[in-house]
Amino acid sequence: MIYSTAQKLFILITVVFMSACGADNSKSEQWRALDINNTLLLTLPHGKVVIELAPQFAPKHVEQFSALIKKSFYHGTKFYRVIDGFVAQAGPKDGSDKDKSVSVLAIEGQFSIAKNWSFTPVQNNDLFAEVTGFKEGFALASDNNDSAWLTHCPGALAMARSNKADSASSHFYFVIGQAPRYLDKIMTIFGRVVYGMEHIQAIKRTSVIEGEYAVDSREHTPIVSLTLMADVPLNERIIIEVENTESTAFAERLIKRRARENAFYYKKPPPVLDVCQVPIKSRLVK
Amino acid sequence: MIYSTAQKLFILITVVFMSACGADNSKSEQWRALDINNTLLLTLPHGKVVIELAPQFAPKHVEQFSALIKKSFYHGTKFYRVIDGFVAQAGPKDGSDKDKSVSVLAIEGQFSIAKNWSFTPVQNNDLFAEVTGFKEGFALASDNNDSAWLTHCPGALAMARSNKADSASSHFYFVIGQAPRYLDKIMTIFGRVVYGMEHIQAIKRTSVIEGEYAVDSREHTPIVSLTLMADVPLNERIIIEVENTESTAFAERLIKRRARENAFYYKKPPPVLDVCQVPIKSRLVK
Repeated sequence: MIYSTAQKLFILITVVFMSACGADNSKSEQWRALDINNTLLLTLPHGKVVIELAPQFAPKHVEQFSALIKKSFYHGTKFYRVIDGFVAQAGPKDGSDKDKSVSVLAIEGQFSIAKNWSFTPVQNNDLFAEVTGFKEGFALASDNNDSAWLTHCPGALAMARSNKADSASSHFYFVIGQAPRYLDKIMTIFGRVVYGMEHIQAIKRTSVIEGEYAVDSREHTPIVSLTLMADVPLNERIIIEVENTESTAFAERLIKRRARENAFYYKKPPPVLDVCQVPIKSRLVK
Repeated sequence: MIYSTAQKLFILITVVFMSACGADNSKSEQWRALDINNTLLLTLPHGKVVIELAPQFAPKHVEQFSALIKKSFYHGTKFYRVIDGFVAQAGPKDGSDKDKSVSVLAIEGQFSIAKNWSFTPVQNNDLFAEVTGFKEGFALASDNNDSAWLTHCPGALAMARSNKADSASSHFYFVIGQAPRYLDKIMTIFGRVVYGMEHIQAIKRTSVIEGEYAVDSREHTPIVSLTLMADVPLNERIIIEVENTESTAFAERLIKRRARENAFYYKKPPPVLDVCQVPIKSRLVK
C-alpha cells in the first residue's frame, strides 16, 4: 500500500481529535438545514433538482449567478453540451444578445486559507492533492495549508469559460461522470446538487459516438425554470436537510467507511477514501 | 506532487518503448471490431445498450451468464436496486424458483499474471493500486506483477453476491457513479458498456433519500431483452468498434491526455491520470 503507518496514524489522530473536542453546536448536530436564500430549484421536463450554492467559496460567481436567476435568465435555455461520463453544460445561445449581456468574472478556482482554517479531512495524497476533505458539505482539497479548492466530484456545479482564466459569465455545467479532477483549481465550482441528481443524469446527451448522427438541437433538454428556493411558492418548495460534515457523527462515518467492517468485505479493501466516493446524505423535510 | 521524477520518467519510457516496438498488427490498428459472439444487446424501455464481455478475465462468469442469456433468462427481470452515484443492479426475484435455479460461481475477482504478461500502463500508485492500465479495452490494476484485476470504473458490469466470496449466481450490476474501487478484487467484473451508457444512467433509481417515499416496484426499470449480438436479427444488430488499447495511437493519446497541452489549460493540472477517467472511444459501424 502507498500509505506509511505514520500517515495512517496521522489521519486517525486527526479524526479522533476532531471528535474529542466536539463541544460546540455544529459538532453535535448530524443534519444541517439549507438556507432557502442560498438554495436553487432547477425544474427539468423530467424532474426537479435542488442545488446548494457556495458563496463562502466563490462569492462573486454566486452573486452574479443569483442575480441572473432573479431575472429568470435561464428559463428556456438548453443543455447544449452533454457528454456522458463528463459534464452537462447549459447556457444561452452562443453569441446571442442574452449571452453577451452578462459580465465576465474573475476566476475563483481556489482560495487562500488562514492558519486556523479547519475542515474535516478525508484522505492524504490522493492522485491530485496532498489532502482532501469536506467543509460545509462541499468536497475540497488543499496543498501545503496555503490554499484550498472545491473538487470536481459528480454533482458539482461550475462555470464554463473560454481559454482565458477570467472568462466565465453565464454558461454552467454539472459534473455527471467520474470526477474530472484535472479541472480542479482552473474552473470555478460554486454549488452542488443535493437532491435529484438522477434527473441531471437523465439529461439528453448531445455528444455522439463516431458514426452516429448528431443529436438535433431541438431535442436538447431545456431548463423549464431555475429559481431561488426563497422565490418558489411555499407549496412548491422542496425543503432539504443535508449531512453536517462538521459533525462528530460524520467524522465517525468516515472512520467506518474507511474500515469497511461489514461482513460483506470478506477481504479488506485498502483503508483509503476517494473524496468523490463519499456520498453526503440529504433528507427531505417537506 | 506525489510523483518523483524517476517515476514520471518510468511511465514515459514505458509508453515510448511500447510505441517504438510496434511491429505487430495489434499496434498498428486504432480500432478493434467486437466479436458478435462476445457482445450483448441490452434493450431497455428507453434505449439500447451494447456490452462487451470479458471471457479472458472472468471465463466462468461469462460462460454461465452467456448460457443464461441463451435461455432468455433476464427478459422481464427488473433493475430492483439502483442507487444514484453507485450501481444499477438487476436480477430475478430474490428466492424465486428462477433465482434458485442458477449455480453459484467461484469468484474471479483477480487473476495471476505471467512474467511476460503485458498491458498498457496508465498510472503508478493511485489510491488503490501500484499500477493501473488497460488491456483489450478493459481498465485494470495490478500489484507486484503477481496479479491483476479489472477495476470498478463507470460502465463496468459485475456480478452481485452475498457475504460469501463464492456466492454470485445471476444478479448483476453496472457501475453508474464515481468508481467504487473499494470493490475491486472482491467482486467479479466480467464486461463493460461500450455503447448507450446514457441509457444505463437513466434507469429509474430505487433507493430514495430519507423522508421520501420508496419507489414502488412496479416503477422499476425492466429489461425488455438481453441477447447475444450474434442471436439478434441482422437488421437489428448494433455493430460497434472500440479503441484498440494495445495500439500506438492509444498510447500516444494517453501521453497527450496526461500533458494537457491544449490552451484551455492556462495552468497545468498534475501530470496524472485516473484510469476510470480515460474514456475508451467507441464508434458505430452499423
